[in-house]
Amino acid sequence: MKPLEAFHNSHENFYRSPFGAVACNQEVNIRLRVSNKETVRGVYIKLFNTKIGEEIVPMDFYQEIEGKKIYQIKVRTPSFPCLLYYCFVIETASKNYYYGNNEGGFGGEGLLKEEEPPKYQITVHKEDVSVPQWFKEGIIYQIFPDRFYREEGQLLEIKKDSFIYSSWRDTPMYIRDGGSNEIARWDFFGGNLLGIMRKLTYLKELGISTIYLNPIFKSPSNHRYDVSDYKTIDPLLGNNKIFEKLCSAAEALGIVVILDGVFSHTGSDSIYFNKEGNYPTLGAYQGEASPYYSWYRFHEFPDKYDCWWGITNMPNVNEMEAPYRNFIIEAEDSVLRYWIDLGAKGWRLDVADELPDAFIKVFKKTLKEADQDAILIGEVWEDASNKISYGEKREYLLGEELDSVMNYPFREAVLDFFTEKISAEDLNKRLMTLYENYPKEYFYSMMNLIGSHDVPRILTLLGKPYVENHITQREKEKQKLNEEERRLAVKRLKLLALFQMTFPGVPSIYYGDEVGMEGLEDPLNRRTYPWGEEDKDLLQWYKKVISLRNKNDVFKSGEWLPLYNHEGVYGFIRENHHHQALIFFNRSEKENHKILIDTRDKVKTLQLKDMFHHHEEIYIENSIEIELKPLEGRVFLGKKIKSAYF
Amino acid sequence: MKPLEAFHNSHENFYRSPFGAVACNQEVNIRLRVSNKETVRGVYIKLFNTKIGEEIVPMDFYQEIEGKKIYQIKVRTPSFPCLLYYCFVIETASKNYYYGNNEGGFGGEGLLKEEEPPKYQITVHKEDVSVPQWFKEGIIYQIFPDRFYREEGQLLEIKKDSFIYSSWRDTPMYIRDGGSNEIARWDFFGGNLLGIMRKLTYLKELGISTIYLNPIFKSPSNHRYDVSDYKTIDPLLGNNKIFEKLCSAAEALGIVVILDGVFSHTGSDSIYFNKEGNYPTLGAYQGEASPYYSWYRFHEFPDKYDCWWGITNMPNVNEMEAPYRNFIIEAEDSVLRYWIDLGAKGWRLDVADELPDAFIKVFKKTLKEADQDAILIGEVWEDASNKISYGEKREYLLGEELDSVMNYPFREAVLDFFTEKISAEDLNKRLMTLYENYPKEYFYSMMNLIGSHDVPRILTLLGKPYVENHITQREKEKQKLNEEERRLAVKRLKLLALFQMTFPGVPSIYYGDEVGMEGLEDPLNRRTYPWGEEDKDLLQWYKKVISLRNKNDVFKSGEWLPLYNHEGVYGFIRENHHHQALIFFNRSEKENHKILIDTRDKVKTLQLKDMFHHHEEIYIENSIEIELKPLEGRVFLGKKIKSAYF
Repeated sequence: MKPLEAFHNSHENFYRSPFGAVACNQEVNIRLRVSNKETVRGVYIKLFNTKIGEEIVPMDFYQEIEGKKIYQIKVRTPSFPCLLYYCFVIETASKNYYYGNNEGGFGGEGLLKEEEPPKYQITVHKEDVSVPQWFKEGIIYQIFPDRFYREEGQLLEIKKDSFIYSSWRDTPMYIRDGGSNEIARWDFFGGNLLGIMRKLTYLKELGISTIYLNPIFKSPSNHRYDVSDYKTIDPLLGNNKIFEKLCSAAEALGIVVILDGVFSHTGSDSIYFNKEGNYPTLGAYQGEASPYYSWYRFHEFPDKYDCWWGITNMPNVNEMEAPYRNFIIEAEDSVLRYWIDLGAKGWRLDVADELPDAFIKVFKKTLKEADQDAILIGEVWEDASNKISYGEKREYLLGEELDSVMNYPFREAVLDFFTEKISAEDLNKRLMTLYENYPKEYFYSMMNLIGSHDVPRILTLLGKPYVENHITQREKEKQKLNEEERRLAVKRLKLLALFQMTFPGVPSIYYGDEVGMEGLEDPLNRRTYPWGEEDKDLLQWYKKVISLRNKNDVFKSGEWLPLYNHEGVYGFIRENHHHQALIFFNRSEKENHKILIDTRDKVKTLQLKDMFHHHEEIYIENSIEIELKPLEGRVFLGKKIKSAYF
Repeated sequence: MKPLEAFHNSHENFYRSPFGAVACNQEVNIRLRVSNKETVRGVYIKLFNTKIGEEIVPMDFYQEIEGKKIYQIKVRTPSFPCLLYYCFVIETASKNYYYGNNEGGFGGEGLLKEEEPPKYQITVHKEDVSVPQWFKEGIIYQIFPDRFYREEGQLLEIKKDSFIYSSWRDTPMYIRDGGSNEIARWDFFGGNLLGIMRKLTYLKELGISTIYLNPIFKSPSNHRYDVSDYKTIDPLLGNNKIFEKLCSAAEALGIVVILDGVFSHTGSDSIYFNKEGNYPTLGAYQGEASPYYSWYRFHEFPDKYDCWWGITNMPNVNEMEAPYRNFIIEAEDSVLRYWIDLGAKGWRLDVADELPDAFIKVFKKTLKEADQDAILIGEVWEDASNKISYGEKREYLLGEELDSVMNYPFREAVLDFFTEKISAEDLNKRLMTLYENYPKEYFYSMMNLIGSHDVPRILTLLGKPYVENHITQREKEKQKLNEEERRLAVKRLKLLALFQMTFPGVPSIYYGDEVGMEGLEDPLNRRTYPWGEEDKDLLQWYKKVISLRNKNDVFKSGEWLPLYNHEGVYGFIRENHHHQALIFFNRSEKENHKILIDTRDKVKTLQLKDMFHHHEEIYIENSIEIELKPLEGRVFLGKKIKSAYF
């Protein structure tokens, strides 16, 4: 026997309560179990508050169970949002031992070590955190506007020195200068706002409620992240009037529009910087007399200035300096207000990492003043609860900042699981980490994407292991899943879509994923929507699982409870006041799985309906046996019996 | 005094007569003058016939003048076209001396040497050489069809995976794959045949009579030198019906259309080769069963085959194999006949160097059978009288081959003169070489271009010394003459245009040169015609000098006679039965030149009218004095007096 054993599991109520993130001014009960041969001289909790610093506090002896001693401390969360980290110190005669988080930092059961271990996290958020219900319960559809649908009859001869693809079904490519490798021309298919308007009924029938548009303001590029004019729709896309019409036409169908806001930089070819002299304004590049001069940071005027990732056509702005901040956020006719007034229902903040916390806070405050129901999403690629960028712990989800973030960790976890990179156990760990670290309100409002304009097409990733390789772009263009790979990929995608639609958070569909678009990384993940050549079977499945969510509140807002995880099978419960749903996934390509679920603790219904085979029902006894075919997902739904029964 | 002196000048009648190229079965009188201290044992002519070989023939003593001995030989030209080369051997007691052509091979006065010197050339051509008059007396306008004018209302969505420039005034670029540097997409402005038809009146007013079109048959590229289908107009340009209409509309205005024939290779993406499988035909790439298999030369089927300059999308053909030769030339519905029947008035043979002499001959023969008046031009970059390609002396202009070639040596000579790279003396030498080597009929039917799709824009070359440099393509795109450079370039271009219009041969204008288009090499020399932004002053000048030629036969068909060359001033005479014209150019940027012309030998008029100052006339005495301002060209025209006066 080891000289000392200890145990703590942040997921178990006995050891930490309440579970997960907590509000300010709350008490968290934390316990540690120690079984020792050596004399324990003292047990301490080492607490680190991101705003204040570290303290070491002795824990009290609480009780002894089977010769093992339980120590306890009640930690009061601060009156301000922050992160609390903790681990335990066990002082013995010979040395100090530490107990802390496991190596992956997943939370749950930890490790005893002789040196300082990773710490557990308690996210401390504002007391009154709430995200608009319409958003939490909706479904997002992300559109890269140049590539969705082109309504004809609009003049194309608009952008100087740019290319129009001759056919809607051409393969996009970056057109670079052979020498410098810089973009030499921008390429456009000419998708436009009228095109989106024309396809609103398609989106309605699909079942989505929120359109998230990649940038649509005037810009030289097709991605439009290099804004020329914050207050004008890009002429190739339409105009401000058409945008207004699009919003009201969408609203009439119960769909809202969210914009992509790029506020860490502007384009160099803009009203504000005007490097190319394409605008009649006096831009910052023209000198100090420019009203925009203070927006930017020149190291050496005019050609050396701070810019986004060294890309000289994206000069960074001083977000918090009054002139810029006013223009974007606070002024009567600010960019924020202007577009909300025209009908937008919220913003997605591009590169939230690059924006000061204070900028995000004032943006959120002003947005909610303009429209209490508007929504603010951030682009964050990692666990947004504890992201460090530029050496600073960032605050995204403590109550005064974002309503939601793009949930790339969710995407990675489910993608890894369904492509057999990780087991169901590991999937559960990763999801539990998010569940534990995110304030619950935010966990239920995450933007749960599996595709976006910044990652290869999900179908391609599901069909073939992705390897960064050095084939030419032309070869990449030609890469297509073969029949067998595609069959597998489609099956997996169906499971993934079902996962999205039954998991807490807001599912987000990247345009065309629902009809089987393929493609490696940018620009091949930005092909045009294949009107007339959709994978109809896949689309049918999407409609079915979206409808499953939309018709059953339990999937939109029900509590989440992990239920089963072993190798290739994962299962969880969603539950609200009236209903309980059990969802299972078998990701194995070839194996059937029969799993036995002990229903006594968690299942509170007498009868479960198989949602994909409407005549089959399961009657619950002490346990149920679920059979899963290869690559099958099953959903069961039951009415809860009165809690008095339990 | 040297032990031996000798003299021969191929330009002087006394030493060689008749001048220049001669027909078969003619006698050429050749003389050499020798003045010696040493005893001359024998004087020989060393003759080399490209078809037979070498012989050494003793020359006869003819006469003695002032102690110098004249030797003579009458050489009979063979009964077949060929080149004769000659030099002289002077045998003395101590050693053999040689007299031959000067180092530049210009003809004229030669050099005495102790080793074998360069030889003089006598071009021996067929006896009945004649080029259609309409061509010789016309003016060509070369159009790169994608870039001239786009008549709207035609569908653009035609070519898969290609780009359309969003604006007519964009700057063209090659779109290459970053890795392989191969063309990744083809780029189009969408100029079309209806566009050319729409602009026929423009061409008529300009004064041109022949349109030479770069390729217009169906092809993947914008230059269309990679033919997919020899019998179909590229859909982006129009269709065969429209071509027919274009020809008849042009004909109604007295304008003819000449096509670009690419017969050394096809495109790989073609009906015939069908590498990409884009055609329903069984292409050579599909195997031996293909009717086109024998057109090509596979080293290793199917991926290794002979192709043009290693460019794999241009597989070379076996021009002289019956299947190809029939298809292109001889069959009832051959490509040659098909387009002549639809209205074309001739062909320009692309890369004539790559075509066997025999192919060109049968092409010419068949063409003339189809239309006696049709014309055949060849792409040859050097002196076409003695061009060697692939180790063989080529026959282009001996009577059974081309009617004309693209006169790049003319272009180079005048360009070098006006940009001060060579003196007027050197210009004269170079022009005399052409005059001497080319059969006179062909000298008068050369395609005298100063611009084409294969060289930088003439204005750019005239404004700034051209240096091959390693700036990026984007920087090249931005290069534009500054105000001063452009002023100089335009002045020079005006002189060059005047030179073209007054020199023997058919002037050829590359679309847009007449309105001041600029641009470095391909693709910057293929910008779009700047409709609405033309340099009107330059265009006016072009109209004026074209009209000068069109209205005065002496410039179309008059004999040519060099008159004056010294440093920056060059002058020549054009003369026919009734008229004589004197043309002078001062290429100096800053200097006035007053030149004195002895009129006694050459000028056969009593009165010269200054064509650019209609009221000024010069009365001829024994000499005239001509004053030339910097960068001025002057043209004088007079009625000849009866030859009895002389």
